[in-house]
Amino acid sequence: MTAPAFILVAPQMGENIGAAARAMGNFGLSDLRLAAPRDGWPNPQAEAMAAGSPVLDSAKVFETTAEAMADLTLVFAATARPRGMEKRVLTPRAAMAELRAAAASGEKTGILFGAERQGLENEDVASADAILTFPVDPAFRSLNLGVSVALAAYEWRAGEDAPGAFRELSPAAPKQEMLRLFEHFETELDAAGFFFPPEKTPLMVHNLRTALGRARFTEQEARTFRGAIKALAHGRGRRGKKDGQR
Amino acid sequence: MTAPAFILVAPQMGENIGAAARAMGNFGLSDLRLAAPRDGWPNPQAEAMAAGSPVLDSAKVFETTAEAMADLTLVFAATARPRGMEKRVLTPRAAMAELRAAAASGEKTGILFGAERQGLENEDVASADAILTFPVDPAFRSLNLGVSVALAAYEWRAGEDAPGAFRELSPAAPKQEMLRLFEHFETELDAAGFFFPPEKTPLMVHNLRTALGRARFTEQEARTFRGAIKALAHGRGRRGKKDGQR
Repeated sequence: MTAPAFILVAPQMGENIGAAARAMGNFGLSDLRLAAPRDGWPNPQAEAMAAGSPVLDSAKVFETTAEAMADLTLVFAATARPRGMEKRVLTPRAAMAELRAAAASGEKTGILFGAERQGLENEDVASADAILTFPVDPAFRSLNLGVSVALAAYEWRAGEDAPGAFRELSPAAPKQEMLRLFEHFETELDAAGFFFPPEKTPLMVHNLRTALGRARFTEQEARTFRGAIKALAHGRGRRGKKDGQR
Repeated sequence: MTAPAFILVAPQMGENIGAAARAMGNFGLSDLRLAAPRDGWPNPQAEAMAAGSPVLDSAKVFETTAEAMADLTLVFAATARPRGMEKRVLTPRAAMAELRAAAASGEKTGILFGAERQGLENEDVASADAILTFPVDPAFRSLNLGVSVALAAYEWRAGEDAPGAFRELSPAAPKQEMLRLFEHFETELDAAGFFFPPEKTPLMVHNLRTALGRARFTEQEARTFRGAIKALAHGRGRRGKKDGQR
């Protein structure tokens, strides 16, 4: 079973990247991805903190979060802050059980971790399938990035003897397909004047992605919806009849 | 119920003491004890890494492990190395369940964490009631001290009733609303010539409803999608520009 990819989004401190690589190595995970690390790559501070973890050498670097998760079908966003999104919020244990079930069915999964100070952007959270949150004390929420990764890695490993997965739907479409679908939808909606007033566009986009993302379309369904969007936006039949423009 | 004391035995790096204090604060623990810290106390590196955790200020310093655990009745030793002792070895989860049960009966409990390189002395392990071990990969065992503390703190907290997460999802829209949405969608798609060949219409409709239904839209989301469908099907801006039909 393929363990989840851990994606650090815009990580700032090499020390935390190294700590993440070390903890992933401790718990048998190997797929570390860095989206736009602040100080470039490789990073000597990361090496110092990795304590020889083999995970660091195989880390992959991407320019954007979208590229880093392009091949994954089930992605959770680790965040402690409420986002006001209609998205499920899972404990680490519940999240890992879901990732494990998906992985057992052949899906490629991952977790997004935000940068040290600001955490994940709303846009990244909106693209994820659910929120993973650690049960922190509300009076002192700020988890170190390396610790967040370690807790998630530990939970993955701790659940390894858990009962086998169920198999349900066809696998979900990779994020790449979903992002294309979202962008197509939003481009057509924008052209149709749907996003109004303009300053509310980002919020409306997040809400649409969150709502539609919950459906976890298969690849076939994603294609069908793109066809539906295209038909609505460009279809000839109805316009001809309804608008009398034939 | 009194949470366990966490006792760092001969810790070397102030950074790790600070990280331990931070993680304990994150998960609502407060009783940090230091037995013979190498660099004395207070320690500026510890303060820098504690990120303002209130746990650091209340840390108590002792000269020996024995003094640090003198008032406790149930103590586990965190160690990754086999010791050849006839002592029970517990997973973090099982260990925390035992500590919790003891604490609920009024016992004072604690966990010993060894120093960075050598871990706990056999003498300290021998004084403990059981061994707590993390499920590390045998090929890469070396856990950071701060991470070990964080994992134990997290497991303590995770066993409490899950703290009130941020809000649950709003209830799903009543079926009536969803059926109206589906019918609206299908009417517009039909008018746009999407259902082709005609005999496949029922199957296509079922597939669309199945896929979209999985999202379990809220009432607000259902309204938003009806707005989106309407915009795509009737929006003026884009058609005017694209089709040159103004």
